[in-house]
Amino acid sequence: MRQQSRKQITVRGKVVGGTRPLICLPLVAREMAALCHEASELAALQPDMLEWRVDAFSGAEDVALCLSVLHELRAIIGEIPLIFTCRLDREGGLQHLRQESRLTLLLRAMESGYVDLVDIELCNEREFIEKIGARAKALGVKLIFSYHNFHETPGKEFLAAKLAEAEKTGADIAKIAVMPKDYHDVLTLLSATNTARNGQVGIPIITISMGEAGRISRLAGGLFGSDITFGAGRESSAPGQMAFHELKTGMALLYGKEYQR
Amino acid sequence: MRQQSRKQITVRGKVVGGTRPLICLPLVAREMAALCHEASELAALQPDMLEWRVDAFSGAEDVALCLSVLHELRAIIGEIPLIFTCRLDREGGLQHLRQESRLTLLLRAMESGYVDLVDIELCNEREFIEKIGARAKALGVKLIFSYHNFHETPGKEFLAAKLAEAEKTGADIAKIAVMPKDYHDVLTLLSATNTARNGQVGIPIITISMGEAGRISRLAGGLFGSDITFGAGRESSAPGQMAFHELKTGMALLYGKEYQR
Repeated sequence: MRQQSRKQITVRGKVVGGTRPLICLPLVAREMAALCHEASELAALQPDMLEWRVDAFSGAEDVALCLSVLHELRAIIGEIPLIFTCRLDREGGLQHLRQESRLTLLLRAMESGYVDLVDIELCNEREFIEKIGARAKALGVKLIFSYHNFHETPGKEFLAAKLAEAEKTGADIAKIAVMPKDYHDVLTLLSATNTARNGQVGIPIITISMGEAGRISRLAGGLFGSDITFGAGRESSAPGQMAFHELKTGMALLYGKEYQR
Repeated sequence: MRQQSRKQITVRGKVVGGTRPLICLPLVAREMAALCHEASELAALQPDMLEWRVDAFSGAEDVALCLSVLHELRAIIGEIPLIFTCRLDREGGLQHLRQESRLTLLLRAMESGYVDLVDIELCNEREFIEKIGARAKALGVKLIFSYHNFHETPGKEFLAAKLAEAEKTGADIAKIAVMPKDYHDVLTLLSATNTARNGQVGIPIITISMGEAGRISRLAGGLFGSDITFGAGRESSAPGQMAFHELKTGMALLYGKEYQR
């Protein structure tokens, strides 16, 4: 039995950090019609969560458009928890957005009431993080503070420290996603996960070893402490994501029948 | 892609230490009729290997009977490679056999020509190991030298050293199976596996973290270097073994479609 998080959170009835890891699918369409179609397809799969990767959306600079998209999305996905993510280009984002646009977009998205969680990179300026953090707390939106490295896997201590830093900065969930060069790096990520879960990190965590070698972390990471895994719905949003039905098949073997359909 | 072994071996056409980990199923029936039935059922599943756990057999002290069983088994299983294992009781064996009976049984079994591999615990006396080793080399039977610990998971260096010791002692395949108390211990086993495969151990290896927590090692151990995984056919022979069809389902996700039926 996996070790649960000491500070579980519940979002629209879904427990993050509990007995079982959750499955989240990313929405990555470029245009509104395609995005709504994607949301409708993925919602039908009944994942535990959805994430709108707004950095993949062609209209990401148009705040009013994004808000009307959010309105549509919520109507389509019903009670499925939604993460709102405008990934920085230097941490894997799909387009460059001006910092001011990002800030306004994030604040308006949280205020809309359609969004349950936002994902913010720890490498943002302190002021940016504080503004988002304060507004999120006031609105009851949950905060994911994240670290991504598409080039390498830093050492175990660095990774565990990043998770601890996210908690210290006020996150409800801490996230790291790093690129392995071999299976040793995959073990480093899993080991940092296990250390964080059993040590100083009390909040739920999301840890990912990306790419082909890291696929095992998307399936088995939950055993070592990762609380959410990202699968590919229609398209993947990061290298190594497994298709939703594969993820469910594998997770049924590791965590029990509740993943079966 | 997993790192292959530097010294692959081929047994009846099956490559141990190659691009994909093999699946072995144990035969653990107590009586001859049940054993033949079990062999017939398991052979029909077409596993990569079968292992006769003769220590589970009620007639294990009767060498002549065991040889006639072997004759029957080979007729039933055809060209499936067969491991002959008379596990020591203090390393998980299911009955106590006198050392002399074990020695005679192992030598006669190897001489019968029905057996492709034998599994011998490293903790046996040096003279015992040397006698078996010399006869195996002369007959072309492959040697698995093994270490089992049903109480705990020793440190990573100890485990990697056990695998190296098996190779130095003349094994064709080195095996360790240890019991985890938590997921940290599971990572220790996987890490020792990865270190051995990428370091000083050139022969194929089998590494297992047993029990419920260790199940992931039976599925994913091959990524880190383990070359054979043991599944449960009709019954399991050690704690944590997954059913054959579950193992195949999971391995198809990790290693490719050749595991699908």
